[in-house]
Amino acid sequence: MSQFDNVAVVKKANVYFDGKCVSHTVILADGTRKSVGVILPAKLVFNTGAPEIMELIDGACLVKLAGESEARAYKGGESFDVPGDSSFEIEVTETLHYVCHFG
Amino acid sequence: MSQFDNVAVVKKANVYFDGKCVSHTVILADGTRKSVGVILPAKLVFNTGAPEIMELIDGACLVKLAGESEARAYKGGESFDVPGDSSFEIEVTETLHYVCHFG
Repeated sequence: MSQFDNVAVVKKANVYFDGKCVSHTVILADGTRKSVGVILPAKLVFNTGAPEIMELIDGACLVKLAGESEARAYKGGESFDVPGDSSFEIEVTETLHYVCHFG
Repeated sequence: MSQFDNVAVVKKANVYFDGKCVSHTVILADGTRKSVGVILPAKLVFNTGAPEIMELIDGACLVKLAGESEARAYKGGESFDVPGDSSFEIEVTETLHYVCHFG
């Protein structure tokens, strides 16, 4: 699905890393919160509270989870899981469009 | 209202000016399209097709419409109108969160 239907969208965005990451919060009919966002080409470290599933809509990146020694490549159409209370290093090589699902 | 309710949101964003402007398309229940977005601090020129109302949710900017000689200051809580088939120069002085309504 290329869009979320029947959801609420918070008008004010979430802006991280001086705008290298911009997301909007989406609230599904059952109250579940997700975010739709973009990460521009950059190398960033994100910390997680809740576990996350990063669903990549478009773009490409290299991801190294905390404790892993090697980065893995992901691209649009793929997704990766991040444990809660953890972090991951992401190198965006092609502007990344994503949906973040919180566990 | 701080959010849109009962809408669809396109998962892939619109990225302009190397990411200085990132927006997501929102489709209301009646089919009306709007966009929610962010413009980072920068001086940019936008061209319009349809007339637009730029509703500022947060942030601050200076706007000079095509044909005007002086820029006017706008901030969160305010909005400005742009005619169709025109352009405007915007200098964002504080990260701008906006909703764009198309005429």
